[in-house]
Amino acid sequence: MAGYVSDAVVKRLPAYYRHLQELEKEGVNQISSRDLGERMGLTASQIRQDINSFGGEGRQGYGYSVSGMRKHIGHVLGVDRQHRMIIVGAGNIGRAIAGAGSFPQIGFETAAIFDSDSQKIGEMIHGIPVQDIAELERFVSEQPVDIAVLAVPADKAQGIAQRLSDLGVKGFWNFAPVDIKLPRGAVVENVHLDESLEVLSFRILQE
Amino acid sequence: MAGYVSDAVVKRLPAYYRHLQELEKEGVNQISSRDLGERMGLTASQIRQDINSFGGEGRQGYGYSVSGMRKHIGHVLGVDRQHRMIIVGAGNIGRAIAGAGSFPQIGFETAAIFDSDSQKIGEMIHGIPVQDIAELERFVSEQPVDIAVLAVPADKAQGIAQRLSDLGVKGFWNFAPVDIKLPRGAVVENVHLDESLEVLSFRILQE
Repeated sequence: MAGYVSDAVVKRLPAYYRHLQELEKEGVNQISSRDLGERMGLTASQIRQDINSFGGEGRQGYGYSVSGMRKHIGHVLGVDRQHRMIIVGAGNIGRAIAGAGSFPQIGFETAAIFDSDSQKIGEMIHGIPVQDIAELERFVSEQPVDIAVLAVPADKAQGIAQRLSDLGVKGFWNFAPVDIKLPRGAVVENVHLDESLEVLSFRILQE
Repeated sequence: MAGYVSDAVVKRLPAYYRHLQELEKEGVNQISSRDLGERMGLTASQIRQDINSFGGEGRQGYGYSVSGMRKHIGHVLGVDRQHRMIIVGAGNIGRAIAGAGSFPQIGFETAAIFDSDSQKIGEMIHGIPVQDIAELERFVSEQPVDIAVLAVPADKAQGIAQRLSDLGVKGFWNFAPVDIKLPRGAVVENVHLDESLEVLSFRILQE
């Protein structure tokens, strides 16, 4: 297993996983650090360092086993196990996540969707009924939830995250444009779409 | 204006913009590097360095003007101008982006949506008709497009990006789980949702 893995390497891990999956599909059995580096836009020595840091092993003159490494990284990322998600907020983003087929494929199943809007409660979104957010406590106490998707307005996100964290939810995938503060043990991964678009705009202006 | 701004600072710029907007709404006129740092989880010296690098100015014993700095950063980010976007792919993500009200608020207007699926062509999504992707060349040559949102399957993204880049489109907001390679001058900003979820999963396992 992996020991301490730096933030920069953690952010690259999913790209390793994706490229190794692609290589597997292409029927490649083994790959050198040089070839993998070329494919990923990294140097061979960076590749060796990264792989070493998350506990992967290569063989001199042979390189890395593509399927072995793909499985190892999948295990480190936890995509070889099931994660139960709930989506809070049945707006545009909540709907998109509920409908995306790729998340169940990597082990992330949406167990329920919640909203406070009485117009939306009861509606079926990709086969999942929207429940009243007042039911959050009951639902989570009856059925374990690994990850809560926060697809709510900025001013609602912290309060909902706090409620869920109090109920023992550990993982938060936050789409609200706000910084969530939670007690130790909770993990927040942000997707700030506005900020991503602003960075794109900045880079276009620099060109 | 800003000169060279490092990647790390560029990624923090939108957070500066967001916090300064919030402060403006709260009626705060000026703020010290220490208070802004506390709010953003950065040290005072980091704040001063960052602001200096993107050409902002503070006054000893007074701090930074909240609205002045907000406007300056908005200008550096280019959110004080209009950007015309097209969305390629009328699936879950394409729909969510077309429907999000926050993007027009920061100057990003969706001008058109394209798809190759005859079932979707002609459909109205948040008031915008889905056009045949075969019309891409005609549309872009008649009406300038600043940013193309790539909300298509992984195996389609590179080809579409290439077509649009050939037509002079400079900015690509890529949601496909693939690395896009384009000639110099084009800018790609990736939102890899699967990878974000995998990083969250990894961090939960580490807790």
